[in-house]
Amino acid sequence: MNNFVYRNPTELIFGRGQLSVLEAKAKQLGSTVLLVYGGGSIKRSGLYDKVVSQLQAAECRVIELSGVEPNPRLNTVKKGIELCRQEGVEWILAVGGGSVIDAAKAVAVGVPYEGDVWDFYTRKAVAESALPLGTVLTLAATGSEMNRGSVITNWETQEKFGGTCTFPTFSILDPENTFTVPRDQTIYGICDIMSHVFEQYFSHTTEIPLQTRFAESIMKTVIENAERVLENPEDYDARANILYCGTMALNGTLPVGVDTDWATHSIEHAVSAVYDIPHGGGLAIIFPQWMRYVYRENVARFVRFAVEVWNVDPAGKTDDEVALAGIEATAAFFARIGAPTRLADYKIGDDQLEVMAQKATPFGPIGRFKPLGSEDVAEILRMSL
Amino acid sequence: MNNFVYRNPTELIFGRGQLSVLEAKAKQLGSTVLLVYGGGSIKRSGLYDKVVSQLQAAECRVIELSGVEPNPRLNTVKKGIELCRQEGVEWILAVGGGSVIDAAKAVAVGVPYEGDVWDFYTRKAVAESALPLGTVLTLAATGSEMNRGSVITNWETQEKFGGTCTFPTFSILDPENTFTVPRDQTIYGICDIMSHVFEQYFSHTTEIPLQTRFAESIMKTVIENAERVLENPEDYDARANILYCGTMALNGTLPVGVDTDWATHSIEHAVSAVYDIPHGGGLAIIFPQWMRYVYRENVARFVRFAVEVWNVDPAGKTDDEVALAGIEATAAFFARIGAPTRLADYKIGDDQLEVMAQKATPFGPIGRFKPLGSEDVAEILRMSL
Repeated sequence: MNNFVYRNPTELIFGRGQLSVLEAKAKQLGSTVLLVYGGGSIKRSGLYDKVVSQLQAAECRVIELSGVEPNPRLNTVKKGIELCRQEGVEWILAVGGGSVIDAAKAVAVGVPYEGDVWDFYTRKAVAESALPLGTVLTLAATGSEMNRGSVITNWETQEKFGGTCTFPTFSILDPENTFTVPRDQTIYGICDIMSHVFEQYFSHTTEIPLQTRFAESIMKTVIENAERVLENPEDYDARANILYCGTMALNGTLPVGVDTDWATHSIEHAVSAVYDIPHGGGLAIIFPQWMRYVYRENVARFVRFAVEVWNVDPAGKTDDEVALAGIEATAAFFARIGAPTRLADYKIGDDQLEVMAQKATPFGPIGRFKPLGSEDVAEILRMSL
Repeated sequence: MNNFVYRNPTELIFGRGQLSVLEAKAKQLGSTVLLVYGGGSIKRSGLYDKVVSQLQAAECRVIELSGVEPNPRLNTVKKGIELCRQEGVEWILAVGGGSVIDAAKAVAVGVPYEGDVWDFYTRKAVAESALPLGTVLTLAATGSEMNRGSVITNWETQEKFGGTCTFPTFSILDPENTFTVPRDQTIYGICDIMSHVFEQYFSHTTEIPLQTRFAESIMKTVIENAERVLENPEDYDARANILYCGTMALNGTLPVGVDTDWATHSIEHAVSAVYDIPHGGGLAIIFPQWMRYVYRENVARFVRFAVEVWNVDPAGKTDDEVALAGIEATAAFFARIGAPTRLADYKIGDDQLEVMAQKATPFGPIGRFKPLGSEDVAEILRMSL
């Protein structure tokens, strides 16, 4: 186990009807709020009305930033920052999935910062203060509700970067708010959660038995609940289990003391930056190929993965065969739940491979399980076609 | 899964040499500190000198509250509060195990409170403010380093109560600081950690797959590292794994959405109140008997426990046999690591059974897995003789 520092002050408010705490939270946080949301699904589901009613009960003046994109854009963030400054916004409420929350985080740290908010994503600056941020999560996927990461796309430079912003002060997670998530978004969310665990599980760090078991716990729980939520989108318990797994997969618990990887996310970001495909779909395509490309760096870890997570029977198999069976099971799981399996599913051919490979490695090799240069990335993308 | 709220703002600073952050922390928290410790083992181990040297480098004035008892006493807490007020103490540093940290928490909430600090333990008041508290943990056991609980004994009224006080601002956990823990204290710590998990694992709440797996992860990790630390007290990795398990066992992660039990802790407190035996030793004796007394309330849960935690092979066995094999394995584990197995090991006979049974149930039945009245408790104690 490596040395580590862990801190996560977000208050997680989980369960049926928990939105009712919003009025009291609003009274604590201030009388002018920026309400951030996406394309309007929260209006169709009725959640928007419930949220506004709570804010009105708290006598909040509500300023709106709507239309946040699935891959949230820097221009939208800047519009939000401008709004906050003009209107004297005291706190921010994000209602939606990871994209909405990520945009809201960028606004939260951008308002008190004199420079360009993009500095936090290009690592030119570290966020030192932020407006308080609450979230009402509607999608199990990114874990953004309980961490301080944020991913923003700069369309002018075709860059999609992650930045370290601010923890939400509180996050309200009502599984019922995920009942109306469309099937494809539900699938992408599951792929995203599994991918977050993969990034933190495949490691050469030794003596991390609890971290390893926690990661396996999340993967097993997602696997056993994935088909339940797809068969019955209003299965409260299955939605609750997936939702809680999504939070625990990326709230800082898994990586303590562990060398994590994150190369596949960089590769997917490069693909999304060029083709604007859904993040979870891209991950489902690329991850099994990354596994095939790197597993020989630590076959024992992939053997454990196969046996513990996918119940591969190692009897009569070589370690290599067991490891590959685990990778096959991963790909088969993604296919079974209806995720895309090849870049061709998004009509992506080989004409931009080098561009994406360069974009994935702007600061040199990526990943720690096997550091990947742009040629490695190009090969993984070629395997993913 | 039940609704839940989770929040834990403590910064966990884990690993070799992490004490070096103390100077910077001290500079942030103030120039007058109350240093709280126990009977002097930190002087023998050299930790005291290292701590004081960091505080001096930060130009802190150090006021000392030493001699905190293994079951910390209200009078000691009051002495600490008085010291803080007289000396204008700005923050508190607890260096030791759970008892030292619990006493420091009581002082931290007692200083800004105008009433009697005991009010927080008799539930007459809720702590609303506290002096900042840092901890340097020397013993893997209570989890107090990352929660806001505190157990204090009022010798005048012969009451031992738990109160909700304050989260440490930061806790420094260097596994090397646990190398010199005596063998018996190491064993008691392991029993305490396992017992904390049991209290939160045996539940009738359904649809808690991730919480269940997290609990099993901690139990398996403690079991596989227990004999390692006993064989070689300076095995860094084994000490690190146990230390991290101790924190995760009681930092609020396991009980989210779960009806927890805690009857066995109440029973043990009653035994300790009469006979002053070590808490971890009492738990090791009573828990297997509690299991035998209650398992029929939910045999399936005990079957899972046996199979997942103790690798009991269910083939050819009835559920009852599997469940009992898991309980036997639990008792055998405690015996194998050298924990006491019967109340007779502490020369406790049957003459005070009724008194202890009454003390364990002052407000009526205890526990949720099977609510236990005083007659149930007396029977469990009789089984433990």
